Amino acid sequence: MIHTYSLVHDDLPAMDDDDLRRGRPTCHKVYGEANAILVGDALQALAFEVLARGVQLAETAVACVAALAHAAGATALVGGQADDLAGQTAVQNPVQNPASGDLAALEMIHQRKTGAMFHVSLRLGGLVAGADRERQAALETYGRRLGLAFQIADDLLDVQGEESAVGKRLGKDSNKGKLTFPGLLGIDASRQYAQRLIDEAIAALASLAPAEGRLAALARFVVERNQ
Amino acid sequence: MIHTYSLVHDDLPAMDDDDLRRGRPTCHKVYGEANAILVGDALQALAFEVLARGVQLAETAVACVAALAHAAGATALVGGQADDLAGQTAVQNPVQNPASGDLAALEMIHQRKTGAMFHVSLRLGGLVAGADRERQAALETYGRRLGLAFQIADDLLDVQGEESAVGKRLGKDSNKGKLTFPGLLGIDASRQYAQRLIDEAIAALASLAPAEGRLAALARFVVERNQ
Repeated sequence: MIHTYSLVHDDLPAMDDDDLRRGRPTCHKVYGEANAILVGDALQALAFEVLARGVQLAETAVACVAALAHAAGATALVGGQADDLAGQTAVQNPVQNPASGDLAALEMIHQRKTGAMFHVSLRLGGLVAGADRERQAALETYGRRLGLAFQIADDLLDVQGEESAVGKRLGKDSNKGKLTFPGLLGIDASRQYAQRLIDEAIAALASLAPAEGRLAALARFVVERNQ
Repeated sequence: MIHTYSLVHDDLPAMDDDDLRRGRPTCHKVYGEANAILVGDALQALAFEVLARGVQLAETAVACVAALAHAAGATALVGGQADDLAGQTAVQNPVQNPASGDLAALEMIHQRKTGAMFHVSLRLGGLVAGADRERQAALETYGRRLGLAFQIADDLLDVQGEESAVGKRLGKDSNKGKLTFPGLLGIDASRQYAQRLIDEAIAALASLAPAEGRLAALARFVVERNQ
């Protein structure tokens, strides 16, 4: 739900200004901007309500709420999105922020903007299942690598995908002069980097059999998807 | 923090479109719309993080998170705000929604839009302090009455206040054809109604001495304030 809220807000005219998401009109196109802001706000609250009411052990529920709130907050999801938006300005005015073209800066943005939600999703799964420390660490490593690979794949789709398959307007990140992985590394190196991250994500799962099979398939899908 | 987030989002151009709040430029006027949306999102997450990390007993923290999430969600704060925005359209097109002029409908909107936050603030205070059932009920009655009285006082300031004292643009609710208490009841009856709610709020505090003194003063301030 946090993820869906952030996508609804992300598509707003003041943010990424997207008309399509997965081939369908975005929330604000159908219901108006005010309702889209409110839908996102309500979904964020609902995510915390589900954790508070749905997780049985109180100590586990509290740990889940703290982890999700941190991942959704100013130092992670929101901070990454703010820096991503600021980065667009920075690239258009490189003198203002000479370090903005840096790969490390781009990774920092996406570890927070996209990666934090992947990471915390795996973290919550481990917490609720009562995973031991080693398995918890394995899940979190998997989540971090997967999140970054997902973003690189997303950047690649933006320059190479078919709009009809991806279901949203493409080419807009590069047209906006936004920092992207293909823009910094080139297409081939970006593809190799995403594949390496997926290999590392799958390697981290070694201690997790039998869950390993599905998570590995999910990781492969992230770099092979065309939508 | 939930309250502040909701005010930041409430002031956005797509919502109430306010340039001033407490005499100072609103968040989106200073930092832009995208940042104002993100600030609100981050503050909502922070509210849950503070509860999860700050409330000592896990069972109490979970109860607080559930109560706050419910009050901030689709059936309370967000639902009330959505109906309030829809009500503006309904009043302009009364044929579409002939019941929209009804006092009960207006109270339902504000019990959720404003009242839920007052109510849950008192509820959380009681939960964290370990109040018994009777005191908890007293606090919640006080919160409900106070919330509604606050909204009536707000409507009265909108038609009768001094902009320099209130610190925001006035007269805009009535100019928009928005449902308001003075619009439905007239000014004198609205004032009497707010006073009756404050009397009931203070009466509910009888079992709470010595906290009673400060809460009663706060209730009186709500109807006597000029800002």
